[in-house]
Amino acid sequence: MTTLPSDSGVTALLAACRNVSTDPADRARGGVDRSGYVPASIPDRIIYAESTDDVVQALRLATHYRVPIVPRGAGTGLAGGSCATAGSVVLDVSRMDKILSIDPVEQQAVVQPGVLNAEVNAATAPYGLFYAPDPASTAICSIGGNVATNAGGMWCAKYGVTRESVLSLQVVLADGRILKTGRNTIKGVSGYDLNALIIGSEGTLGVVVEATLRLRPQPLHTATVAAYFADAPAAARAASAIIDARIQPSILEFIDGGTLAAVDAMMGTDHARRGNAFLLAQTDGYGALLEQQVLIEAITPYATSVEHTDDAGRAAELVAARRNAIPALQLLGRVSIGDIGVSRKRLAEAVQGLAEISTRTGVKIFVIAHAADGNLHPMVVVGNDESITEGPAKVALGEMFHLAQRLGGTLTGEHGIGLLKQDWLEEEVGALSLELQHKIKAVFDPLGILNPGKGI
Amino acid sequence: MTTLPSDSGVTALLAACRNVSTDPADRARGGVDRSGYVPASIPDRIIYAESTDDVVQALRLATHYRVPIVPRGAGTGLAGGSCATAGSVVLDVSRMDKILSIDPVEQQAVVQPGVLNAEVNAATAPYGLFYAPDPASTAICSIGGNVATNAGGMWCAKYGVTRESVLSLQVVLADGRILKTGRNTIKGVSGYDLNALIIGSEGTLGVVVEATLRLRPQPLHTATVAAYFADAPAAARAASAIIDARIQPSILEFIDGGTLAAVDAMMGTDHARRGNAFLLAQTDGYGALLEQQVLIEAITPYATSVEHTDDAGRAAELVAARRNAIPALQLLGRVSIGDIGVSRKRLAEAVQGLAEISTRTGVKIFVIAHAADGNLHPMVVVGNDESITEGPAKVALGEMFHLAQRLGGTLTGEHGIGLLKQDWLEEEVGALSLELQHKIKAVFDPLGILNPGKGI
Repeated sequence: MTTLPSDSGVTALLAACRNVSTDPADRARGGVDRSGYVPASIPDRIIYAESTDDVVQALRLATHYRVPIVPRGAGTGLAGGSCATAGSVVLDVSRMDKILSIDPVEQQAVVQPGVLNAEVNAATAPYGLFYAPDPASTAICSIGGNVATNAGGMWCAKYGVTRESVLSLQVVLADGRILKTGRNTIKGVSGYDLNALIIGSEGTLGVVVEATLRLRPQPLHTATVAAYFADAPAAARAASAIIDARIQPSILEFIDGGTLAAVDAMMGTDHARRGNAFLLAQTDGYGALLEQQVLIEAITPYATSVEHTDDAGRAAELVAARRNAIPALQLLGRVSIGDIGVSRKRLAEAVQGLAEISTRTGVKIFVIAHAADGNLHPMVVVGNDESITEGPAKVALGEMFHLAQRLGGTLTGEHGIGLLKQDWLEEEVGALSLELQHKIKAVFDPLGILNPGKGI
Repeated sequence: MTTLPSDSGVTALLAACRNVSTDPADRARGGVDRSGYVPASIPDRIIYAESTDDVVQALRLATHYRVPIVPRGAGTGLAGGSCATAGSVVLDVSRMDKILSIDPVEQQAVVQPGVLNAEVNAATAPYGLFYAPDPASTAICSIGGNVATNAGGMWCAKYGVTRESVLSLQVVLADGRILKTGRNTIKGVSGYDLNALIIGSEGTLGVVVEATLRLRPQPLHTATVAAYFADAPAAARAASAIIDARIQPSILEFIDGGTLAAVDAMMGTDHARRGNAFLLAQTDGYGALLEQQVLIEAITPYATSVEHTDDAGRAAELVAARRNAIPALQLLGRVSIGDIGVSRKRLAEAVQGLAEISTRTGVKIFVIAHAADGNLHPMVVVGNDESITEGPAKVALGEMFHLAQRLGGTLTGEHGIGLLKQDWLEEEVGALSLELQHKIKAVFDPLGILNPGKGI
């Protein structure tokens, strides 16, 4: 699909753009994300866009000279979606990091793509508002990347994923034209939903240069429950019992024993001493305390101990255990992060199936999960000198996908296909869907210069 | 875009399909919906599909003979989207009316497109579950049409529109191939969001033959508030005050004085005696009563009287006033139903602007609104012998769109573009967006045989 550029094309493109880096260290950074993927080469150059005009200029020239462009935000992706190699140029938008406006009455914010997720919440908190999609990487991931992957997080159990919180976008197409998608009203059905089409398209359809975010009122009350279990299946059954109790937790996170130990080692906490599996649940809003009671009743039969708190400090400590799970495991070796989704009622089967995959393949698999959505992150940890893209780690990743399929599920709940999950995409969505997706890609990017080989 | 069929093509198509009606009364029914649109001609035939195979067969032949096909569900649309004329064949899926399965644990239902919206709720209520998108026409509209228009309703103030409650679809493409979109898990990002692309595409990309719906637990408590106001702007300001109070009503409906009088005339109620504008609000869930208190405090400064009830019977009576608003106005004459969306904080300005449009154009405009979403339905009522597609009614519709634009809004919040709102679509979404949408249409339906001239 992609036409490789001539060297002179790259040279001409770069000569016409501002803020181009040829520094090998910069370029090496453009080759990696946080997935553990090790690239075979590094991209030719990095362009640091500082404005929409910079993006327009770069893409116009890229189209003219047919130079493959890899859009990049904070580089915290977990599927290789922003990893660039030789023959391509990175278009880094992390310097487009302004919050352009906050409308506390309409409960909206307009931001540039390089704004960090946590920065949105820091800026809107004084107005009593928050931005719901909250990847574990909130402190380091940017809104552009969140849009590219349709990122989820903990709060999406109650508040939905990025798609439900991004009202409209400005997107620069491959040829430099600026597309506006969506609208600033809560509802709207004029024409096809191009906004949803861009969200989750992993930088293959255009480069997001502005996003209008829907904010939500901070809940008046938040109630937190931490429960420990004898084993992972018991915790998974408790999570399903919460769904079955028909309450709506705002957070419902599962952490297995191995991950708890890794978190303890990094944080100096003592979770693993208290159980071999952990559930963290929050309820919020005017009914938080009543819902908390129902939640505790639902899980108590499965748990060895249950702690509840309305203290914000203690709640933050418990949430930190989950937020630090991935960094803690990364201290143990190279981590390949799975992202399967299954029917919520089959969480225990999924946990059991992952244990069997670990036994069969001989790789260590740690498991955390957004349990209310049936979204598991099985994490394969190998030695720092071992590969995650071939050998047993790859085999395990494939087996996880088939496990998810068997349990009514999906290959990726919130991280995207990127580079690392391409092998199973067609099996999940089908040949016809993929054919249509490639044709849609060609509508937006007929020369195939935008993030070639990624996503679809 | 459309190639007109030869008569022999239509004849050959029909000879190969089951359940074809040539009856003029049937065909006339296929030319209208509930928008008040009066067609100049009637479609050639109606095919009543009873299975996916019937739909596949009809579309394969339609592609072969290049016959324009107008998909049709319950025919309750409000924008002419399913109205067919001479030269086209109606593909009516209303007989595909089976609820295929309900999974009360996973909180999902699989249904055919002809199932009525209210039937889903009747079937899932015994499990303590409900399907959130609830157009006022719930008793007579079908799921296929709800998907085609990304239908909203009252409960979407809290629970989102059709897009947020349809997990996956089976869609027959123009050439008869069957596409599966979405997935059965809550989250999933493998590939582009074709599910959201189909939802709201008004039958122009494919014919939905099966939908997997996300159900939600019925709220344990529901609290209802009915408030009356001296005039419409006061009620609109009260609605904005509720948003500003940072609570989340599950229903927030505005009805103006003229509409109240029409409802009273039809229902024998006495709303109009109690005020010249009306707000109906519900809060639900474990915090319903606490939220109700905050809501009452927010609106009391604006209201002349406030009634609250936790009695389900009385609440149903109040909700019925809103559900019957459109039928009540239709007793007064031919109704052209607007569907504009504006910033929620600008509701009072919208109401004021509509009054000015009424004065300027000399047409009567009644107003109801889903106030929590800023989605207004201004209803132009003309004589039964007058047109809604030309003259003052058309002028008023155009002015409404420009009013919505001025207030940060949209032409259509939940009814779709259909036939009747085409004139303003490009002005809203822009030429580039429309160009891309037409190219996407061509990806799905290269011969342009599916619902030609509708939606985009």
